[in-house]
Amino acid sequence: MSQHSQVNRRVVLAARPQGLPKPQDFRLDQTDIPKAGEGQVLLRTLYLSLDPYMRNLMDEIPPAYAPSVALGEPMVGGTVSRVVASQHPNFRVGELVLGNAGWQDYAVSTGEDLTALGDLVQPSLALGGLGMPAFTAYVGLLDIGQPKPGETVVVAAATGAVGSVVGQIAKLKGARVVGIVSGVDKCRYAVEELGFDACLDRRDPQLAQQLAAACPAGIDVYFENVGGEVFDAVLPLLNVGARVPVCGVIAHYNDAAPPAGPDRLPGTMTTVLQKRIRVQGFVILDHYAERFDAFRRDMQAWLAAGRIKLREHRVDGLESAPEAMIGLLEGRNFGKVVVRVGE
Amino acid sequence: MSQHSQVNRRVVLAARPQGLPKPQDFRLDQTDIPKAGEGQVLLRTLYLSLDPYMRNLMDEIPPAYAPSVALGEPMVGGTVSRVVASQHPNFRVGELVLGNAGWQDYAVSTGEDLTALGDLVQPSLALGGLGMPAFTAYVGLLDIGQPKPGETVVVAAATGAVGSVVGQIAKLKGARVVGIVSGVDKCRYAVEELGFDACLDRRDPQLAQQLAAACPAGIDVYFENVGGEVFDAVLPLLNVGARVPVCGVIAHYNDAAPPAGPDRLPGTMTTVLQKRIRVQGFVILDHYAERFDAFRRDMQAWLAAGRIKLREHRVDGLESAPEAMIGLLEGRNFGKVVVRVGE
Repeated sequence: MSQHSQVNRRVVLAARPQGLPKPQDFRLDQTDIPKAGEGQVLLRTLYLSLDPYMRNLMDEIPPAYAPSVALGEPMVGGTVSRVVASQHPNFRVGELVLGNAGWQDYAVSTGEDLTALGDLVQPSLALGGLGMPAFTAYVGLLDIGQPKPGETVVVAAATGAVGSVVGQIAKLKGARVVGIVSGVDKCRYAVEELGFDACLDRRDPQLAQQLAAACPAGIDVYFENVGGEVFDAVLPLLNVGARVPVCGVIAHYNDAAPPAGPDRLPGTMTTVLQKRIRVQGFVILDHYAERFDAFRRDMQAWLAAGRIKLREHRVDGLESAPEAMIGLLEGRNFGKVVVRVGE
Repeated sequence: MSQHSQVNRRVVLAARPQGLPKPQDFRLDQTDIPKAGEGQVLLRTLYLSLDPYMRNLMDEIPPAYAPSVALGEPMVGGTVSRVVASQHPNFRVGELVLGNAGWQDYAVSTGEDLTALGDLVQPSLALGGLGMPAFTAYVGLLDIGQPKPGETVVVAAATGAVGSVVGQIAKLKGARVVGIVSGVDKCRYAVEELGFDACLDRRDPQLAQQLAAACPAGIDVYFENVGGEVFDAVLPLLNVGARVPVCGVIAHYNDAAPPAGPDRLPGTMTTVLQKRIRVQGFVILDHYAERFDAFRRDMQAWLAAGRIKLREHRVDGLESAPEAMIGLLEGRNFGKVVVRVGE
């Protein structure tokens, strides 16, 4: 776990996973530390964000969504880094930047994808509560879900980086919020710390009945980030005019083939029709230009006022990233997963 | 087929159909002609509209969509009727009204659901091109589908009451339009008469490949009114940001149970996410207050200018309604299905 400084350690994609990734789908290798050329900066990774979308990038997928990670190349990922060499006029050695250095100790950047973090007290916030996951929650809930006061919002992975913010913003907007999580500890945290009205364990064999009981007025907004059995439990409870922002389907990222029947698509489309439901996928990269400033302004105010709480699930060492990623896909994390890569 | 005038013939729902309705799921009976009480009018049905949504009402369904037809009660349906007796100040004997008299010769109304048709040259237009089906096309395409010039719009049942108007409005808005129909005659009509850019036979075993060839730039709007194999062919061709107004899933109205697997729902949700697709169900009854006036104004102008063509599939005699309804669900109609009930 010592942080080498004379080589660049990288976690590369060794094989395209079949189903849930295995440790051997990744490989830790090392290269020379790259050099910053004219107009470039050399970055030392401090924090690496792990997020469910990364599972998608391990497959060969439509480039419209995001480019796949090539075999033998480092896994991609958002990072907080320190500038350790600079031939770029806008970045000076020593400052912290948000970027996309991926799963490695060092990376070179032209600066185009970097944001200076200034004197952010907790730099890893730029990967969570002030970064992509919370921005995803903000856009998906407010722009697509559009909860009204008194409506019922359901969110799964409800103590995770996205779900915890979805639920807390929904509470701020006056909605009733029901979370779904894996495990009793997370349930308690969602209700007692985050202020959700109810929280259920997704492994409860009575999930569908429990959810119906927790949503006596039905469901108006379902923030979809898991799919699977949670979606099955939600679907019959959706109200007329319900909105379903689709941010992720983590339960299916590992599907090696379509699940066995019956085919639920026709029945789902019939429900969508009869209940005038809007199901809308979104990819957060599309929304930075228009909405990131509003998000940052609102979120900083909410954090400063203590109206939104954040929880980080911190893992030490780049070499721990594969196991932490697998745990994230299995729901074993408790909060936003951040890998501490360098000092 | 003679039009009795001393009794009220009715087609009642005799049994809830299993799958495609059979003739014996309906029963022709007769009652006395009802009498108009204070504030009521007695209506003689001239034209009865047959529409796919009626299949839904034969099942026990969520009341949020529409009330089911009770066993032994007349099938519901939109009608053009003549007022034959009136104790209502706003309706005089002899005038034509649009209403919901259902599958019967006579009905009594309080007037609340009636619209005076004035001197409409072709009264049955109120059931099609100036009525609910075309209004469904207008709202679904323009408000939900929102086609832009140069985009590709795909519509199935493309020579039917809704689909033919969807395609023609899309052409007026500058879109490329590809229709899907059953049969060569309808294909030719869609291209030669309605001006579609291409039209395919849904029974073509190469439908998916044909559709891909007909949509070289992918699909931006898919107006969903059929489901089934057409949706399967459309899904992989949808572009990033595509819109799917869901107006009907006629292919599944007769499903007695969910189709066999594999379960295509997870894969569809993944596509919805990756391509940022918006799938939105709508029920036209929700939209009259806000949009019907705009529709009528636009549609009358388009019809007057010959920019939209309409085709009626006319059937004679109330007793023919069950068979015509079954034919509609099988795609055997060619145009808007209207039953001529009375002179």
